Amino acid sequence: MEKIRIVLDACGGDNAPDEIIRGAYEALKTRDDIEIILAGPEEEIREKVSEYSDIPSGRISYCNATQVIDMAEPPVKAIRHKKDSSIVKGLTLVKEGNADAFISAGSTGAILVGGQLIVGKLPGVKRAPLAPLIPTKKGVSLLIDCGANVDARPEHLLSFAKMGSVYMENVLKKKNPTVGLLSIGTEEEKGNALVKETLPLLKECSDINFTGPVEARDVPFGAADVVVTEAFAGNIALKMYEGTAKMLASVLKESLTSTTRSKLGAALALPALKKGLKEYDASKYGGAPLLGLKGLVVKAHGSSKAVEIKSAILQCLTFSKEDINGKILERINKEEQ
Amino acid sequence: MEKIRIVLDACGGDNAPDEIIRGAYEALKTRDDIEIILAGPEEEIREKVSEYSDIPSGRISYCNATQVIDMAEPPVKAIRHKKDSSIVKGLTLVKEGNADAFISAGSTGAILVGGQLIVGKLPGVKRAPLAPLIPTKKGVSLLIDCGANVDARPEHLLSFAKMGSVYMENVLKKKNPTVGLLSIGTEEEKGNALVKETLPLLKECSDINFTGPVEARDVPFGAADVVVTEAFAGNIALKMYEGTAKMLASVLKESLTSTTRSKLGAALALPALKKGLKEYDASKYGGAPLLGLKGLVVKAHGSSKAVEIKSAILQCLTFSKEDINGKILERINKEEQ
Repeated sequence: MEKIRIVLDACGGDNAPDEIIRGAYEALKTRDDIEIILAGPEEEIREKVSEYSDIPSGRISYCNATQVIDMAEPPVKAIRHKKDSSIVKGLTLVKEGNADAFISAGSTGAILVGGQLIVGKLPGVKRAPLAPLIPTKKGVSLLIDCGANVDARPEHLLSFAKMGSVYMENVLKKKNPTVGLLSIGTEEEKGNALVKETLPLLKECSDINFTGPVEARDVPFGAADVVVTEAFAGNIALKMYEGTAKMLASVLKESLTSTTRSKLGAALALPALKKGLKEYDASKYGGAPLLGLKGLVVKAHGSSKAVEIKSAILQCLTFSKEDINGKILERINKEEQ
Repeated sequence: MEKIRIVLDACGGDNAPDEIIRGAYEALKTRDDIEIILAGPEEEIREKVSEYSDIPSGRISYCNATQVIDMAEPPVKAIRHKKDSSIVKGLTLVKEGNADAFISAGSTGAILVGGQLIVGKLPGVKRAPLAPLIPTKKGVSLLIDCGANVDARPEHLLSFAKMGSVYMENVLKKKNPTVGLLSIGTEEEKGNALVKETLPLLKECSDINFTGPVEARDVPFGAADVVVTEAFAGNIALKMYEGTAKMLASVLKESLTSTTRSKLGAALALPALKKGLKEYDASKYGGAPLLGLKGLVVKAHGSSKAVEIKSAILQCLTFSKEDINGKILERINKEEQ
């Protein structure tokens, strides 16, 4: 049986290394066809791993890395200078073909820069977008691009639409996924210069199921399976979605615990509330892939716990088994042949 | 006593004319220093008004308008051709000095275009931004610009910062309001070209209390009193805030009514929930002003009911009494003298 080799950044995120290691352990218990390489200070990580006595031997290996890239470090400089960091060493394993995928909950900027500089883009791909999945009333939508390469051009957005469609078709198993272009109205005459220049490209593309511009207001209701956007607007849409949900959750919690009566009510309503809100929990989707690279790079949320790390690992498995990169390569270069 | 004369578009929004008229009635009952002019089909509106027997005579007048601008109509064309619409006639009253303010829950595009074409901008103002207030964990923030004039330049954003500060200081009575620039990170090296070019202008401006870039994720938590942004990103931030809140409210409602036990819990928790969520109800703020015009133009939400219309009227009152336009004029032109 061919095994998928996944490098996990054991130093990345708020809950490293404990939750990262636990996530690896949970994933290894679920599937036989993965191997995990933990990148970070080897001695310390080995000791943590030794607490899990039932990990089959040979399924976890180590990539010793003595440096850590902080969230606040300028990404390009960090990637260039911290050659012994878990991110640089982990990405190098992917570049050299010694691993299939790299997952990190660390610095988004460093992962984006490192992914492009170290792993490199697939031939024909001009930009590698960061594409998180966001839960909606209809299931889940891919918001592409939410990364750091701002000020994109129309042809970049066209390639995001193609890559996003391949991802939704093959990883999420969504047939003929709809593609919407994020704008400030559903009418075609609305939008900025980029939207207006991108619209004809998306309409003419026979490889995607383009349904027109979508408003941000409709995105949480599942306006399109793939929501295409330039990274600055995409990042703002994503962060506003997260921020508003977090703010309202805190208001809800405060309200429900504010009086004796409300506490009793909350206790009664809790099972139904949990069940309802579980559908909108992004953790089961694991992380945001950086699409269009020669290997797979996944950015997990900085606050990821074991469940997110496990989901990210399983997402990488599907990504590799379905040969998403082969399909992206084909789709992106089809019209250029 | 000098009275503030406010034109209300009786044809605009989902609940026109009934809720518009009721809003006018509620406002007139509260304050003696306003007069309302209802724009729309006079005969029909007079009949509706006659249902309120206790409106003091002379405090409501009419501006007969036989046309209605639909939400879907291209705004520029609508403003040019529908000369007998409630929006064109209402804005003309403001332009000619026969009214101080115009409020409409109708087509945002037509109000924005009409405000600039008919009422006109204050001297020195290059763009008139739409500036809605959004409830946050710390109170309320002004998101400026969320309008239709996309692709702004750095000097426009600087003027938004100044106008927004004047508004928050004088209408919301916020002393020395903080100003943030919406970006994709709080670090100065993040952001798109516009953000990077705007940063030095905001930092150098002594008239505002600029605190740096803000992330969309922190906006619902009150990251800044005035959140400055180009209209495309601003509109996406605003609509994502609204859409996410609406989606989560529907999930909450479905969950709380899903089982007998949860229904009982919900009934017990309801008073506390209502009280908690009331703080985050945007209706008390009435509407979004279009700042920098020679008169006051307010866009009320399309779904506005009487309570929002009443709030918008009271907002206009403060705006006029505090001479916001005089203060904007002074602030905007200060550095050019």
